[in-house]
Amino acid sequence: MPERLGPSLSKPLFERIALIGLGLIGSSIARAARHLNLAGTIVAVDRSEEVVARVRELRIADEATTDLVAGVKDADLVILCVPVGVCGAVAEAMRPGLKPGCIVSDVGSVKASVIAQVQPHLPQDVHFVPAHPVAGTEHSGPDAGFATLFHNRWCILTPPDGADEQAIERVRVFWSAIGSNVEIMSAQHHDLVLAITSHVPHLIAYNIVGTAADLETVTQSEVIKFSAGGFRDFTRIAASDPTMWRDIFLHNKEAVLEMLGRLNEDIALLARAIRWGEGDKLFDLFTRTRAIRRGIISSGQETPEPDFGRRREDKA
Amino acid sequence: MPERLGPSLSKPLFERIALIGLGLIGSSIARAARHLNLAGTIVAVDRSEEVVARVRELRIADEATTDLVAGVKDADLVILCVPVGVCGAVAEAMRPGLKPGCIVSDVGSVKASVIAQVQPHLPQDVHFVPAHPVAGTEHSGPDAGFATLFHNRWCILTPPDGADEQAIERVRVFWSAIGSNVEIMSAQHHDLVLAITSHVPHLIAYNIVGTAADLETVTQSEVIKFSAGGFRDFTRIAASDPTMWRDIFLHNKEAVLEMLGRLNEDIALLARAIRWGEGDKLFDLFTRTRAIRRGIISSGQETPEPDFGRRREDKA
Repeated sequence: MPERLGPSLSKPLFERIALIGLGLIGSSIARAARHLNLAGTIVAVDRSEEVVARVRELRIADEATTDLVAGVKDADLVILCVPVGVCGAVAEAMRPGLKPGCIVSDVGSVKASVIAQVQPHLPQDVHFVPAHPVAGTEHSGPDAGFATLFHNRWCILTPPDGADEQAIERVRVFWSAIGSNVEIMSAQHHDLVLAITSHVPHLIAYNIVGTAADLETVTQSEVIKFSAGGFRDFTRIAASDPTMWRDIFLHNKEAVLEMLGRLNEDIALLARAIRWGEGDKLFDLFTRTRAIRRGIISSGQETPEPDFGRRREDKA
Repeated sequence: MPERLGPSLSKPLFERIALIGLGLIGSSIARAARHLNLAGTIVAVDRSEEVVARVRELRIADEATTDLVAGVKDADLVILCVPVGVCGAVAEAMRPGLKPGCIVSDVGSVKASVIAQVQPHLPQDVHFVPAHPVAGTEHSGPDAGFATLFHNRWCILTPPDGADEQAIERVRVFWSAIGSNVEIMSAQHHDLVLAITSHVPHLIAYNIVGTAADLETVTQSEVIKFSAGGFRDFTRIAASDPTMWRDIFLHNKEAVLEMLGRLNEDIALLARAIRWGEGDKLFDLFTRTRAIRRGIISSGQETPEPDFGRRREDKA
């Protein structure tokens, strides 16, 4: 077990956990839960036969099945790790298998839409505690996961009004045990915060990579060759899972469009400063933005090493 | 000496090299030239007493001075490593010291403006070979440099019409010896290519970090906490040297505004796709952008490791 993952529990937090969707996030939860003894039994459910077979090979769950209703049966905690666009359909489909009193959670990057989709399908005696671990890499699938993905990252819970306090607490303890810092806020506020810290950055990254690919005056090979000037930083998040991100934008439409509007206003000002040679305005902004990075580094959310510590064995 | 820096030369390429400006780039050239025996004598010239003192402490040059005219005296190769906005003034000021037949080069991220600034100040018998090593980190100053910064990166030469072929060849050999791949193109094309691969990405990064800092609905502490969702990637290049970047935008105005215009057109389309729920358009773009990253990785300009290989000692 990796040193910094924390001690494993002497007694599991949940008798039986079902993870729906074994991509990067689902498979990382499975690995962490296994390492830390958070669950008596871990059940992996995925609609893909291939993923289920791979999960068995990787031995990251105790049981693996494509059968949703059978998979959630007797589970004390069910976590949806699927694209936010299908959360409602999955909730509806798994309903017949849910145990009375069980907790349903998720990991979606959008919360208001997920609540609106899932809540109506859940029986009264099932507790819904939406969650969003703010962590990930640009890679996808069950092989991409690892147990420390959530270590020292934040996990946001957005319990709807009237949610069961004990259920919230159990989900909080679960994510704390995994190594995350847990914060609770409203789904609406979450969606606004994530629009600027995650969704709009991804949209901008996808956009600039697309624009560069389409230029008629600069070849794609030139874009690739000279990407070390800054462009390549954007390509990382523009390599993230297309289905997941399509769904995020469609399901957090208002907040994304609002933040994008603000960004456009600011960029129009910057363009004007460049056009009119107003160097002071540029300099002021460029000085201010350094402080934010310092804050991110000192809070432990980023490495202080130059170039993200990109591997450079030959550094002198 | 680091393993992958290549063999040091048995005979220096230049008797005497003067580096003007000992920031990240200048001090990295000094270190590489020293390691690889590219120069009989390395002279460091910086207008800052503090930088000159630090260069002496670091022992990365044979001589260090604040006196520009004395510093370039007898040099066979003079490399301007200063912000592009002051290249003309530096060229004018150093002119009395330049040895007939010497080569003057630079490392500026903008080329047409630098040529227009520098060329008029150089005597007929001095050869100007503008260069741009496409490499860097977000750190600045003489302590930030390292000898392998340019290893496997591209260095673009943009010799003006009628430039001396032998001088071009000597600069090419210099950068090859440092470990760079060298490409020759026109200054105009360079400025267009770099606008999209470097300048606009920086502008966008500075802009999004600035917008996030100014929100009234999301606190700065929330932006910092939840930055692992993608935002933190942008903060790296938005922490680059403010003076250097102010000058780049002011001196590559047309190409930057042109590329920014295209970006804005594309983002308007994306915003419209989100507003109208056109998931297919989003999905198509998000799939296309993955291929560009694969190209950058397979060309050796980026690490294949997830998350840029950010240090995660506890990865399981």
